[in-house]
Amino acid sequence: MTIPSQMKALLLVGDGYARTPSGSVLEAMEPYVEAGSIAVPTPGPTQVLIKVSLASINPSDVAFIKGQYGQPRAKGQPAGFEGVGTVVAGGDEPSPKSLAGKRVAFATGLSNWGSWAQYAVAEAAACIPLLDTVRDEDGAAMIVNPLTAIAMFDIVRQEGQKAFIMTAGASQLSKLTIGLANEAGFRPIVTVRRDDQIASLKALGATHVLNEKAPDFTATLRQVIKAEQPRIFLDAVTGPLASAIFDVMPKRSRWIIYGRLDPGTTIIREPGQLIFQHKLIEGFWLSEWMRQFRDRRGPAILEAQKRFSDGRWSTEVTAVVPLAEAMARVPAELAKPNGKMFIRP
Amino acid sequence: MTIPSQMKALLLVGDGYARTPSGSVLEAMEPYVEAGSIAVPTPGPTQVLIKVSLASINPSDVAFIKGQYGQPRAKGQPAGFEGVGTVVAGGDEPSPKSLAGKRVAFATGLSNWGSWAQYAVAEAAACIPLLDTVRDEDGAAMIVNPLTAIAMFDIVRQEGQKAFIMTAGASQLSKLTIGLANEAGFRPIVTVRRDDQIASLKALGATHVLNEKAPDFTATLRQVIKAEQPRIFLDAVTGPLASAIFDVMPKRSRWIIYGRLDPGTTIIREPGQLIFQHKLIEGFWLSEWMRQFRDRRGPAILEAQKRFSDGRWSTEVTAVVPLAEAMARVPAELAKPNGKMFIRP
Repeated sequence: MTIPSQMKALLLVGDGYARTPSGSVLEAMEPYVEAGSIAVPTPGPTQVLIKVSLASINPSDVAFIKGQYGQPRAKGQPAGFEGVGTVVAGGDEPSPKSLAGKRVAFATGLSNWGSWAQYAVAEAAACIPLLDTVRDEDGAAMIVNPLTAIAMFDIVRQEGQKAFIMTAGASQLSKLTIGLANEAGFRPIVTVRRDDQIASLKALGATHVLNEKAPDFTATLRQVIKAEQPRIFLDAVTGPLASAIFDVMPKRSRWIIYGRLDPGTTIIREPGQLIFQHKLIEGFWLSEWMRQFRDRRGPAILEAQKRFSDGRWSTEVTAVVPLAEAMARVPAELAKPNGKMFIRP
Repeated sequence: MTIPSQMKALLLVGDGYARTPSGSVLEAMEPYVEAGSIAVPTPGPTQVLIKVSLASINPSDVAFIKGQYGQPRAKGQPAGFEGVGTVVAGGDEPSPKSLAGKRVAFATGLSNWGSWAQYAVAEAAACIPLLDTVRDEDGAAMIVNPLTAIAMFDIVRQEGQKAFIMTAGASQLSKLTIGLANEAGFRPIVTVRRDDQIASLKALGATHVLNEKAPDFTATLRQVIKAEQPRIFLDAVTGPLASAIFDVMPKRSRWIIYGRLDPGTTIIREPGQLIFQHKLIEGFWLSEWMRQFRDRRGPAILEAQKRFSDGRWSTEVTAVVPLAEAMARVPAELAKPNGKMFIRP
């Protein structure tokens, strides 16, 4: 395959971190990325060059391009943490060589040669050769959300209590977690913002789906928590909603923050609960989990692939936007609820 | 020794928990305790009856009588968690019998037969027979603060970083901790609210003493934290001060809340730090520590007694108030800085 010298990509406008917090809504692309042309990157000895077929857009991508993520932006380089594509070149080490010509799911990690481009660079170790039974749409979203779901559900399992709580209940991540939990006989309690999301999440296996906008939300929440005694709170939101949930959770509860969808003020309502009720507030980051639980990574990736192959998991696609139209169309497509959108380079 | 049937005591006015948070200042005694007469309690099989010589007043006592502590009040029973006195009767088990006639430091724990009375009941296991070399003032304050200091300094040691931060730097607890840290070559950074507290705390071994009221406090704090890289934050205060300190602490920092001196709102300024910097917010409660670290309890008690005997630790006494004058005098004496006050039944 001939590899061109130049490629089209969505390039980072900002550098490093933003100084002020901002929300999860992508109001426009222009402040954060621009469409441009750039030299096709050369993979290092342990890396591969991938011709991208489909690139994912996760909440972490939005946080990253806005300078709100846990790693600094490199101005002028392509954005995008995840995608699917074909390996067209690679470094000299055995691991890149073994991937030559294969269709892989990949995560670009810290290399900053992102997936929102015609070609991307990834560590060979962060590529998953895909079974033919896995769709491109599932492959492009097979690392960030699925591994996060598996890793966080490990925490729920270890705690032992069958019930647990999640905010942003209609997110892809939450849906994957509900699926895992339901199969294992756990009892997910999730919050949403629209009544029309309730039925489908219950069908997936959520035990309780609470609409945070409902007038009786606080009373229902209190009642459900009293009955179910959840001690793990997987929180994508923070702000007043998360504060209120944590406040009514029982002794020894853990508020595990993994996202920041609400940029509003996050209050510890009763710090005395941390003293006398042994409650904890902590965070979850997939990159950190990957470092800490190296041995769990392989089996988790295998599990994710099996689940997408046999249909237990499936990615709901709301839109596939060509790279050339991404600047204009991504914000509006991303704002649609209940699904996931992709960029096709 | 003849034991009377009735005794004088300060009795709890409230029952259970208070519904609204309130600060650490004891504005008056009347809303919370009243002077009264009550039957001298009878110790259970594993307990002893102690003729109280001196009773301690700790921040946890104030929180308790206000209904802000981790255990419910029992209306009409004497307050007071800690004291020193002589064992005058006991249950039939070997352990109470072995204490007969001895001068002991004691903690009343969950029995609610408090030390602010002529007689108190304590579990024999929660009594420490005192060496003659230990003063009553030190014996009466030998459990709550000293064990908390030893337990929390254990956490600092385990973390490994030499520097750590404490709020309420001029408290007895902080002074004990500074002493421990200084001897072991650690570097305490403490905050105070008055310049006249700085010199004595530095003399005790605090590496940095920062006045939170100083106009350059935030800049100094940032500078000191950058230079010292503390990762343990022992916090008696919460509220805006604690939020500001935690915000500028480095990766993998732990905000350990053990007191609630400021009833103001406690904000997590950057929840993203919990995700991407692996920061943690947790609590410390001596009662919980005692349950979790049973084997550490004996050696810690021995260490405390040795330290008071050989003068490495000493309790600064600001006032000893007779029980009959306690209702009128305690709030004003308690408001004085830099020392500890006692009630003499």
